[in-house]
Amino acid sequence: MASQAEHVAMRRAVELSARALDTTPPNPDVGCVILGPDGTVAGEGWHERPGGPHAEVVALRAAGSRARGGTALVTLEPCSHAGRTGPCTSALADAGIARVVYAVADPNPVAAGGAGVLRAHGVDVEAGLLADDAAAVNARWLTPFRTGRPFVTWKYAATLDGRSAARDGSSRWITGPESRAEVHRLRAAVDTVVVGAGTVVADDPHLAARSDGETLPYQTQPLRVVVDSTERTPAGARVRDASAPTWIATADEVGADPDGKVDLAKLLTALYEQGRRYVLLEGGPVLAGAFWQAGLVDRVVGYVAPALLGAGPHALGEAGVGAIAAAIRLDVTDVATVGDDIRITAVPRKKV
Amino acid sequence: MASQAEHVAMRRAVELSARALDTTPPNPDVGCVILGPDGTVAGEGWHERPGGPHAEVVALRAAGSRARGGTALVTLEPCSHAGRTGPCTSALADAGIARVVYAVADPNPVAAGGAGVLRAHGVDVEAGLLADDAAAVNARWLTPFRTGRPFVTWKYAATLDGRSAARDGSSRWITGPESRAEVHRLRAAVDTVVVGAGTVVADDPHLAARSDGETLPYQTQPLRVVVDSTERTPAGARVRDASAPTWIATADEVGADPDGKVDLAKLLTALYEQGRRYVLLEGGPVLAGAFWQAGLVDRVVGYVAPALLGAGPHALGEAGVGAIAAAIRLDVTDVATVGDDIRITAVPRKKV
Ligand SMILES: NC(=O)c1ccc[n+]([C@@H]2O[C@H](COP(=O)([O-])OP(=O)(O)OC[C@H]3O[C@@H](n4cnc5c(N)ncnc54)[C@H](OP(=O)(O)O)[C@@H]3O)[C@@H](O)[C@H]2O)c1
Ligand SMILES: NC(=O)c1ccc[n+]([C@@H]2O[C@H](COP(=O)([O-])OP(=O)(O)OC[C@H]3O[C@@H](n4cnc5c(N)ncnc54)[C@H](OP(=O)(O)O)[C@@H]3O)[C@@H](O)[C@H]2O)c1
Repeated sequence: MASQAEHVAMRRAVELSARALDTTPPNPDVGCVILGPDGTVAGEGWHERPGGPHAEVVALRAAGSRARGGTALVTLEPCSHAGRTGPCTSALADAGIARVVYAVADPNPVAAGGAGVLRAHGVDVEAGLLADDAAAVNARWLTPFRTGRPFVTWKYAATLDGRSAARDGSSRWITGPESRAEVHRLRAAVDTVVVGAGTVVADDPHLAARSDGETLPYQTQPLRVVVDSTERTPAGARVRDASAPTWIATADEVGADPDGKVDLAKLLTALYEQGRRYVLLEGGPVLAGAFWQAGLVDRVVGYVAPALLGAGPHALGEAGVGAIAAAIRLDVTDVATVGDDIRITAVPRKKV
Repeated sequence: MASQAEHVAMRRAVELSARALDTTPPNPDVGCVILGPDGTVAGEGWHERPGGPHAEVVALRAAGSRARGGTALVTLEPCSHAGRTGPCTSALADAGIARVVYAVADPNPVAAGGAGVLRAHGVDVEAGLLADDAAAVNARWLTPFRTGRPFVTWKYAATLDGRSAARDGSSRWITGPESRAEVHRLRAAVDTVVVGAGTVVADDPHLAARSDGETLPYQTQPLRVVVDSTERTPAGARVRDASAPTWIATADEVGADPDGKVDLAKLLTALYEQGRRYVLLEGGPVLAGAFWQAGLVDRVVGYVAPALLGAGPHALGEAGVGAIAAAIRLDVTDVATVGDDIRITAVPRKKV
C-alpha cells in the first residue's frame, strides 16, 4: 500500500510528466520523484526529448547518494531494455533504490517487464498508483498501444464565432504569427499530417514542417496524407513535392465506407501498420466532421482568434449531431494565450 | 508632475477599480490609494456597490491618521456633491490630504467640479495620470457621457465551433449552470436587456433577471426591449408579462433604417433619453450582426461551452464582413473558466 507521502510524490511526478508536451514524441511523457529513506523528496525529473535521459535517470542524478534506500515514484513502469540510454531498471537498482511505485504498466512489448527485473534485483515494486491521471498525461503515447491506431490531434484555427475563413474564402491570416509558429512546432512533433482533398484543391497547402522558419530535412518530416477518395489531388499540387513523403490515400487503396469515401478507421489502421503513431488532423471542416462522427479524434487544439466574421466557412462541418443532447462534449485540459489568440486544448469527455 | 511612487500607486488604484466588476452599476468603477506623508501606502479602497462608501472614503478609513499631509491617487475626479454618501472632496479635505492626483475628469455635470472644490480647500490637485488605463476599466460608466448612448455588452453562448443551437434548433443547455447563473447576475446589473424579434418568436424568452433563483422585484428589473420593426411579437409573449417593464421598439416609433428595420443608433439614443445607460444585448445572431455592423457594441462576453455541434444556427450572423482584412478585430481583456465553460471578454480593437 502506498503511503500518504508516496501519493503526494506521485501526484508531483504526474505534474512533472506533463512538462515536456510535444518535445517527447515518439517517446512517452514520464515524470519521476525520488524519496530519500527519510521519506522527503530527494530528486525530481522528467523525460524531455528523445535521446535525452529518462525521467528516472534525471531524478536519480538530482538525488545523488540520498537515493540509496529510497523510493522511486514513476508515472510509467521503468524500462528494462537498453535503447539510446541504458535500462532504467539497472539505474534504479545500481543507485540502491529499495522500492519502486509506478502508475501505468508499460504496454510496449520491447520495453516491458521492468517490474519483474526490479523484483529480481530485490526491489519492492508496486503498480497502479494514480494510473488514470498518469495515463491521461501520457495518452498521446499510450493510445496507439491500446487501440492499434495512431493518436489523433485535431487542430483548427477559427474566430470567436467559429469561422475559419471570411465570406470570400480569404483566411490569411485569421490567427497571429505566434499561433502559426506553434502549429509548425506541432507538425514537427507528429509523424503524420492529414488533410482532406477539399483543402488541397481549395488552398494547395504545402504541409511541410518548419522549425525556426527552416523546412525540416526530408527524413524528419511527417508523412503528408491527403484523404482523397478518387484521387482528385492535382498532379502539380504542392503537397506532392519532394520536400516530405506524401501519401494520397484513396478509397481503392484503403477501403471505402458505405458512401464510397475513404474508410477513416481503415486509414488509421493502415497508418499504424506503416509505423505511424501520432497524427495531426489539419482539416478541413468536412473531413474533421467525419473524424469526429467516427469517434476517431483523441484531442483538439483550437487556436481562437479574437475576431468576428459573421459569415464564411466553418471550422467544423457535419459531425452527425442532430440535437443538443447528442453534442460532442469535451473536457478542457488547457486554456492559454498565444500572442493575441486563445489556445484551447480539450479531450472527448469519457462516457460515464 | 507626478512622482514615481505616485505612478506606482495610481497603477494600483486602476487595478483596484477593476475589482468590483458588475456590482457597481449604475455607479462608476473607481479605485483609490492614499500615500502617507512619507510616500508609502497608507490605505487602499475601491467602490463596491451603489449605496456603499466611495473608493476615497474606504481608502481614507484604512489610512486613518496617516492620511494627514498625504496624497490621494484616485482613478476618477472626486465628487463634490452629496449623493447617498457625502461629497468625497470634503472627506479628503477633512482628513488633511495635501495633494490629490486623479486619472479621469468626472464628465457627470452633477458631480463634476471636484478639482475646483479641492483647490478652494487649499489642496494641490493634478489630473490625467494613467487616464487611458483608468478610462478603459471604467468604460461602462464613461461611454454614455461620451457618446450619448448606453454602453452595450453583447453576450452570447456558443460551442467551440461557434454554434448557438443544434441542427434541430435545440439549445437547452449548451452552457452549464454556472454560466447561466452568471448571465442572470449580468442581467441584474444592467438597466436594459435587448433582443431581436426573431428570438422572441423562436424561443419566447422571459428575459426577467433573477438573483439566487428569485425573480427580482419589478422596480429593479431591467427594461426588456424587443427590436421588432413591424411588431410581430405575439400578444401572449412571455416578455410582455408584468414581471418587468417591456418596450416593443418598432420602426415606426424609433425610426427606420434604409431597409425598413429599426434604426439601431436611434434606438440607443432613445434609450439614453429614457435614462438608460447599460444595455445587455442578448441576441439573436441577426440582431447582433446588425449591432456590430453599425459599430454599436462596446464589449463582448462569450460563454463558450466545451462542445462541438458541426451544424446549427450561428452565434453571430451577417455583420457586413466580406473578407478577412475586414474582420472585426478585438482585444481580449479576460479569459476565465466558469464551471466547465470558458468565458471570454473582449473589446473592439481601437483603430490606430
Ligand atoms: N481553419 C482551419 O483550421 C482550416 C484547416 C484546413 C482547411 N480549412 C479550409 O477548409 C476548406 C476546405 O474544406 P472541405 O471541408 O471542403 O475540405 P476537406 O475537409 O479538407 O476535404 C473534404 C473531402 O475529403 C474527402 N474525403 C475522403 N474521405 C472522406 C471521408 N470519409 N469523410 C469525409 N470526407 C472524405 C472528400 O472528398 P472526396 O470525396 O473527393 O474524397 C471530401 O469532400 C478550405 O477552404 C480551407 O481553407 C480550414
Ligand atoms: N446562443 C445565444 O447566445 C442566443 C441568444 C439569443 C438568441 N439565440 C437564438 O437565435 C435565434 C433567433 O435568431 P434571429 O437571428 O432570427 O433573431 P434575432 O436576431 O433575435 O432577431 C432578428 C430580427 O430582429 C429584427 N430587427 C429589427 N431591427 C433590426 C435591425 N436593424 N437589424 C437586424 N434585425 C432587426 C428583425 O425582424 P423584423 O424585421 O421583424 O424587425 C430581424 O429578423 C433563436 O433560435 C435563438 O435560440 C441564441
